[in-house]
Amino acid sequence: MQKVIDYLKKWDNLLLLTHVRPDGDTIGSAAALCRALRDMGKTAYLLYNPEITATYEPYAAPYWAEDGFVPEHIISVDVAALSLLPENAAIYQDRIALAIDHHPSYGGFAAEAYVDPSAAAAGEIVYGIITQLTPITPAIALPLYVAISTDCGCFVYANTTARTHRIAAALMEQVDVSAVNKALFRTKSKVRLAMESRMASEMELYDNDRVVVMSIPLSLREEMHATEADIEELSSLAALVEGTDCGITLRELKPGTVKISVRSGPRIDACAACRKIGGGGHRAASGATVEGTMEQAKQAILAAVAEVAGA
Amino acid sequence: MQKVIDYLKKWDNLLLLTHVRPDGDTIGSAAALCRALRDMGKTAYLLYNPEITATYEPYAAPYWAEDGFVPEHIISVDVAALSLLPENAAIYQDRIALAIDHHPSYGGFAAEAYVDPSAAAAGEIVYGIITQLTPITPAIALPLYVAISTDCGCFVYANTTARTHRIAAALMEQVDVSAVNKALFRTKSKVRLAMESRMASEMELYDNDRVVVMSIPLSLREEMHATEADIEELSSLAALVEGTDCGITLRELKPGTVKISVRSGPRIDACAACRKIGGGGHRAASGATVEGTMEQAKQAILAAVAEVAGA
Repeated sequence: MQKVIDYLKKWDNLLLLTHVRPDGDTIGSAAALCRALRDMGKTAYLLYNPEITATYEPYAAPYWAEDGFVPEHIISVDVAALSLLPENAAIYQDRIALAIDHHPSYGGFAAEAYVDPSAAAAGEIVYGIITQLTPITPAIALPLYVAISTDCGCFVYANTTARTHRIAAALMEQVDVSAVNKALFRTKSKVRLAMESRMASEMELYDNDRVVVMSIPLSLREEMHATEADIEELSSLAALVEGTDCGITLRELKPGTVKISVRSGPRIDACAACRKIGGGGHRAASGATVEGTMEQAKQAILAAVAEVAGA
Repeated sequence: MQKVIDYLKKWDNLLLLTHVRPDGDTIGSAAALCRALRDMGKTAYLLYNPEITATYEPYAAPYWAEDGFVPEHIISVDVAALSLLPENAAIYQDRIALAIDHHPSYGGFAAEAYVDPSAAAAGEIVYGIITQLTPITPAIALPLYVAISTDCGCFVYANTTARTHRIAAALMEQVDVSAVNKALFRTKSKVRLAMESRMASEMELYDNDRVVVMSIPLSLREEMHATEADIEELSSLAALVEGTDCGITLRELKPGTVKISVRSGPRIDACAACRKIGGGGHRAASGATVEGTMEQAKQAILAAVAEVAGA
C-alpha cells in the first residue's frame, strides 16, 4: 500500500486502462482515481474504451485521453488479465507499471500490483488509496459509489462486507446517490423486461434442478431490437431462481462466440469452473468467452461445473 | 429518546404489536427489541400476527406471546395507524403506551411516541434505542438487519442514508447476512418469475407514459397457484419501468377489496395521493386498501395521483 501511495505521489502523466465490456467498477474506479490525480495537480487520463455503454459513459467522458497524449506511467484498474484489455490498449500492455485489482485470478502482468481479493470492488481499493492522497470530493465520490455499488449488486451480493457499507456511508456524505441508485438498480427498459420474461420462461434446469441455464442468442437480441444497455448485467437473472445454486447465462456475442457467465453458491467454485474453459473471476461470479455454438458452450460449462462440484 | 430509554429500563411484562400484512421491518424491529428486552432480564413477547408469512416467521417465532400472557405495557412497532393493527390486537389498541415508528403519517394513537420519519426503517430507530440499553448480539443484529434492509430495498431506495449504511456495517460485524440477502433479495420462485412476466407484459401506461399500472387480480393468483410469499413485495416491480416515475400496483385481496401500492419519484407525493383514498405511508412509497372492483380502484388512484401531481 505505502509503495503504491509513494508511486502515485511521485508519478505524473498517467494513463489508466479499463477492461473489455466495461462495467461500473472498472470505469468508476478509474474515473475516481483520475479525478484524484488531477486534484493533486497531475496530468491523468483514461484510455478510451471502445465498448463503453451509455450507462457508464458519463462517468468516463471527462477523462478520456486526448489524441497524441504520451503517457509516462500506465495503470490498469480492475483488469485481471492482459486478454481483458481492449484492443487499443495492446500497445501499452508490456509496460503497465501498476495493476489495481480485486480478482483472485489476477494474472501478475504489471511491474507492481495492489491486489486485494477481499475487496468487494476495485473501488474499495481505490477509495483506500485516494484517502491517502487527496480529499474525497463529490466528483470523486460519485464514480466511486458507482464502482462499489455495481460490483456488489447494490450491497446484496456475498462479497459485501461491513467495510463496503462503511465506505458507502462516507461517499454518501459527499454526494446524493439516489439518482444513481434509481438509474442503475431500479430501472428496466421495456425491452429488458420483455427479454427477462423470455429468458425466464425458456430457462433450462440441470443437475437435479440445482443448475439453471438462461440463453441470450443473437436472434433474441435482434427480435427484441435490444441495445447493449438492455442486456447489461442480465446474467444476474439466472442467479435468482429459487432452489438453484448455480446460474449460468449464455450470451451469443457473434456467430460462433459465446460469453458465459456463472453465478454460484458455496457448492460451486465458479472461478474454478470458468478457468477450465479459459476464463476466470471470483468464486461466486465468473465468466469465460468460448468459441462454438450456444449448445457447445452450454455443454462445456455444464461439464466444467459438474467437475468442480464433484471435486 | 431519553424518555423512551427510561421507560424501557423501568417497564416489564411487555407486549409488542406489529402491523397487518407484516413486512421485514415490523417483524424484524419488534423481534430485535423483544430479544434486547429479554437480554435485560425482562419478560417480553410479540403478539402473534395471523398474517405472518414463511419469509418472516423464523424471526418472530421465538417471541410469539404464550396464551394467557397478561402484558403490563404495550408497544407498537412500525405501526402508522390503529387501522393497521391485526384484529387480535384490537383489545390492546386503547392502551398502547409507546409507538415506535418512522412513517410521517403516524396517527398519534399511543401515550408516548418515538417517530423519526428520516429513518429508512423502524429498525434504524430500534437500533438506536437498543444501543442505549444492551449489547448488540448476533440474535439482535440478524432481525435488525432484516428490518432495515427490507425497508430500503437492500440499500437502493431513496430513503437509504449514510446512517443506514453505518448501522448495516455495525450489524454485519455481529452476524453473517449473506444467507439473508440471498433469500430476501436474490431469490425468486418460478411462480414469481412467471407472475412478474405476466404483470410486465400486461402493464398499462398513463399520463404521457409516466405512470405505470400493474395488476394482480385474484384470477392470476389462482391460475399461477401463487402463495402469499410468491406475491410479497411484487409492488416494487412497477417502480422499475424506464421512463415512468410513478408505479402503481393493484392487488385484489378478495372480491371487492383492492390493495393499492404506489412507488413514486419526486414529481408525485405518493403519501398525499394515498391519503386521498384513505391510505398513507411515505412520500415515495405508500398504499391504501379500497372497496370496489380492480377498475374502480385504478380510476380512484389515478385520479388521486393526477390531483397530487397537479398541486
